[in-house]
Order: sequence, then C-alpha cells, then structure tokens
Amino acid sequence: MAFRLTPHERGFYPLFTRAAENIVAAAEGLAELVAADPAARPALASRVKDLEHAGDDLTHEIMVKLNSVFVTPFDREDIYRLASSLDDVLDAMEEAADRIVLYRLDDLPKGIAVQTDVLVRAAISTAEAMPGLEKLESLREYWVHVNSLEDEGDAAYRSLLRDLLAPDDDVTPLDVLTVLKIKEVVETLEEAADAFETVANTVESIAVKEA
Amino acid sequence: MAFRLTPHERGFYPLFTRAAENIVAAAEGLAELVAADPAARPALASRVKDLEHAGDDLTHEIMVKLNSVFVTPFDREDIYRLASSLDDVLDAMEEAADRIVLYRLDDLPKGIAVQTDVLVRAAISTAEAMPGLEKLESLREYWVHVNSLEDEGDAAYRSLLRDLLAPDDDVTPLDVLTVLKIKEVVETLEEAADAFETVANTVESIAVKEA
Amino acid sequence: MAFRLTPHERGFYPLFTRAAENIVAAAEGLAELVAADPAARPALASRVKDLEHAGDDLTHEIMVKLNSVFVTPFDREDIYRLASSLDDVLDAMEEAADRIVLYRLDDLPKGIAVQTDVLVRAAISTAEAMPGLEKLESLREYWVHVNSLEDEGDAAYRSLLRDLLAPDDDVTPLDVLTVLKIKEVVETLEEAADAFETVANTVESIAVKEA
Repeated sequence: MAFRLTPHERGFYPLFTRAAENIVAAAEGLAELVAADPAARPALASRVKDLEHAGDDLTHEIMVKLNSVFVTPFDREDIYRLASSLDDVLDAMEEAADRIVLYRLDDLPKGIAVQTDVLVRAAISTAEAMPGLEKLESLREYWVHVNSLEDEGDAAYRSLLRDLLAPDDDVTPLDVLTVLKIKEVVETLEEAADAFETVANTVESIAVKEA
Repeated sequence: MAFRLTPHERGFYPLFTRAAENIVAAAEGLAELVAADPAARPALASRVKDLEHAGDDLTHEIMVKLNSVFVTPFDREDIYRLASSLDDVLDAMEEAADRIVLYRLDDLPKGIAVQTDVLVRAAISTAEAMPGLEKLESLREYWVHVNSLEDEGDAAYRSLLRDLLAPDDDVTPLDVLTVLKIKEVVETLEEAADAFETVANTVESIAVKEA
Repeated sequence: MAFRLTPHERGFYPLFTRAAENIVAAAEGLAELVAADPAARPALASRVKDLEHAGDDLTHEIMVKLNSVFVTPFDREDIYRLASSLDDVLDAMEEAADRIVLYRLDDLPKGIAVQTDVLVRAAISTAEAMPGLEKLESLREYWVHVNSLEDEGDAAYRSLLRDLLAPDDDVTPLDVLTVLKIKEVVETLEEAADAFETVANTVESIAVKEA
C-alpha cells in the first residue's frame, strides 16, 4: 500500500528526514552530557544549543515551503503539526541540557540517563521512519515502537518523581531546592518523550489518509 | 435552528457521546478517590487509569475515522480539536489521580474536593450536550454552564494556591515538599477544568458554523 | 508587495488591531504593577483582569466572525491561530499580575521588571504591525524585532532562574517557598514572551501566503 504524495508535497520529506537526523544528533549530545563529567557539560550544552538553532532553521524552511506551494489544506495541517511537534522535541531537549548546566546540577539521579536513553532510541526510530514512509507496514512498527518507548519513559519519569518527592524511608531525601531543580529537568525530558509520541501520531494520521 | 451534518459526519457524534460518558465515569472515580480512605485509593486510581486507556481507544477510533472519510477540511479541524480537548481532560484527570497515590498524599486540603466536584459537574454537562447537539438553544445553556463552572474551579484553585504558598498567619504552614506535591495535583485538576472550557468553545464553534 | 485579502477577510484586521492595542494596555498595567508600591498592586491587578476580559470578548468576536463568514479553510486556520496566540499572551500577563498579588510578593527581583519591559515593547511592536500588514518589508522588521525581544526576555528569564535556584555563593539565598512563588511568576512572564513569538510567526505565515 503506497504512501502517495502529489509532486509538490514530496519536497517536504527530505526536509523532515533532515529534521529528524538533527534530532538524533541532539539526543545523543544530551545523553552524552548527562553521562559526562560536570566540567565537560557546558561545551556539550552549547553543541545541543547549536543543533536546536539548526532545527529552527529547518522548521522555518518547512513553514515557508508550506506557505508557498499549493497543497490541499488537509495535508497542510498535518505538515504543520509534524513540523511543530519535531520542533517541540528539540526545544525540550535543549531546555533540559541548558538547565542541567545553568543549575550546576553536578549529581544527577540515575533515572535521568534512562530518560535520555529513551529519547535517543525514539529519535533513531523517528529518523528511520521518515524516509521509509512508503511502506505502511514498517510505519506500524514505528508507531508501536515509539508508543512502547513512551511507556518506558513514563515509568522512568514516575519513578524519578517518587524518589524526589516521596522517597522511601531508607533513602536520604534531597534538599528541597535540589528537588525543584531536578524536577524541572525530568519534567522537560518527559515533555520531549511525549512530543515524540505526537510526532508518531501525526505520521500515522498522514499514512492513514494516504493509504 | 438545526445542527446539520452531512451523512458522513454523523458517525462522529455517537463516538463523542461515548467519549464524554467515559469522562463522566473517570471524573466520578477521581472524586471518589479524593474522598476515599488512603488505603482504598490505589484501586480507584487503577480504575481511572483503565478509563483513560478506554478514552485513548475512542480518540484513536475518532482520528482513524476522521482520516478515512471525506468531510470538508473546515469541519475536520473542529473534529480534531474536539477529540484532542476531550483527550486532554482525561489525561489531566488520570495524572491527578496517579500523583495523589504516587506521592502518598494521605491528607488532602478540602479545596481539592471542590475541584473534583466541578469536574464531575462539567463532565455531566458535556455528556448531556453531546447527543443533544440538535438544539442550539440547549447548547447555549451548556456553554454558559461550563464557563461558570470554570470560574468556580478557578476560585477554588486560587484559594488552594494561596493556602499552600501564602497562608494566613493563623494557619500552620505545610512543609515545602508537601506544598510541591499538592501544588502539582491542584494544577493538574485546574488543567482538566480548563480543557472542559476548550471542549465547550469547540462545540460552540461547530454549532455556529452549522446553524 | 501587497498583503491581499478577500473583502470578507478584511473585517478581521480591525479586530486584530483592537486586540493588540488591548494587549499594550495590559502590558503597561503589568509593568506599572511590578514597579508599584505593594499597597497599590491589587487595584492594578484588577485593571489587568478587566483588560483580559475585554480581550476575551474580542477573541470571541473574532471566532464568531470566523465561523460565520466564508473564507478559504487555509486562511481560517491562520486566523484561528493568530487569535489564539494573542489570547495566550493576555492570559499569561493576567496570571502573572494575579499571582504577584495573590502570593503577597512584596519584594520582587529586579529581573522581573526587565521581563515586563520586554513584554511592553513586544506588545507595542505587535500593535504597530497589525494595521500595517500591507507592507511585507515592515513586517520583516517586526518579526526580527519580536524575535530579538524574545532572546532578551529569555536571557532575563534564565538569569532569574539561576539567581533563584542556584545563586552565587555571595548572594543570600531566598527561602524555598519564596523561590516557588517567584519562579511561578517568572515562568508565566516567559510564557507571555513566547506567545508573542508565536503571534509573530503566524503573521509571517499569513504574509508569506498573501505575498
């Protein structure tokens, strides 16, 4: 079952592929930052920031293209949503990287590496799906995969929240200011994971229409 | 003044009615959880979680139907928005139920029961409006009602925030970690109330066009 | 390069101009509140609240008009987004004003005045752009200006977050409850600045199509 596009629309897919590959690089940079020695983090945060700027340029290019070419309004909204949700993923990843450095959060709970690992895998899965939109079957695998990754991310997120805010009696609680700072980081990482799910749902939406 | 739909579109309204009835059950489960003994809460949170999954399935069914049938693009966006905002209501209610249990919040301020009572009433009002979309006059009552409920919910929310964060001198302040946890719950309940308003505004938008 | 609208659509622009002028008044009220003696703030917050209600009425008027007249679906979504993002600006400004009073935040960090100054300038720039949509060149200046204001706002925001949550050793840290309250205010002001950027991006989107 082919994923058909009018000639004018085809031009969007290379742009989406580049946007998704840019997100893979940002997710890997973020995971590296979380694993790195605190002294090495500012440079890694700058790299993620640069990738976010590159992503903004791609989003802008997609939007200008969208507004300049004739496509049916229906597909137009899907393309708008896909570009916006890819942008949301990248914004959240950049914000998380920034806050870890801004708040000098030298010690991060281990669960954060689980969150960033989920993001790397979701990014790779998304980048693999973008150019392969021809086969509905492979897309179904992609949706299922991103949805199960979102469940995995949510479990890590809830476990982090509980450890931060309602730790078991045998755990030494963190001071409240540290709780506040780490909570902001884990919430932002959860937003990125949610935004990957929105990307996947939008791709599903496009595929169903084009089938 | 009839609320006219093309034959293809009619199929959406039974789905929206089921989605709204599912939300009534979730709102009642949430209100029950807030009123319950802490030991009984995990089972009630599981029930709300199950209803959220059922709601996800209904949203998915609406989206697939939306992408498969021919409707004008104009109505399509309204249907998309209505399904999304009903989904937002349910997500927020499930999250609030989950956090109360996850954070072992045995003692909840009384204002939270006011918030959940507002949600139950907004849910019932929404469910009553869905199948009765034929009469513009009854819809107007629904919008007015949901908007006044949102005002009521907002008053409860602001009063809770003030008690939590800037209590009067004669009130014993809570410890800050407890403030953080309860604040997250009351904010999530306020998001649910706001999302009911978005539902009502979208219904208004549909009705005005169809009038 | 003319910004062309069908006769039916022209009616929206005076409404958008009024909405933007209303936002200027609210931003000025908010900046005045931040600079004012705490005793004078409740009256100023009431004024901002009244302007928010006036903005809601304008949004409602735009939505009803949008649903009643024939315009192409494409432009309809842009108009919807423009009205929504102007509404988001005003909601965030009203919420910030409200929380300063609700939480009795007598002492505000100086950076908050930087944030509200950015909002005043973004509001003025937006109001100037609305009636002048004829000239694409002047619109480009507007986008560039709002985007640079957003950068300025973001720098103030991040500096405030760092002072609140990870102050330098020579700064006396605030108590955590005060941190929580002020953090909510600065986040809400940052949301308002972000929403101005969404307004500018939507205006760009409209202009590119109409060029």
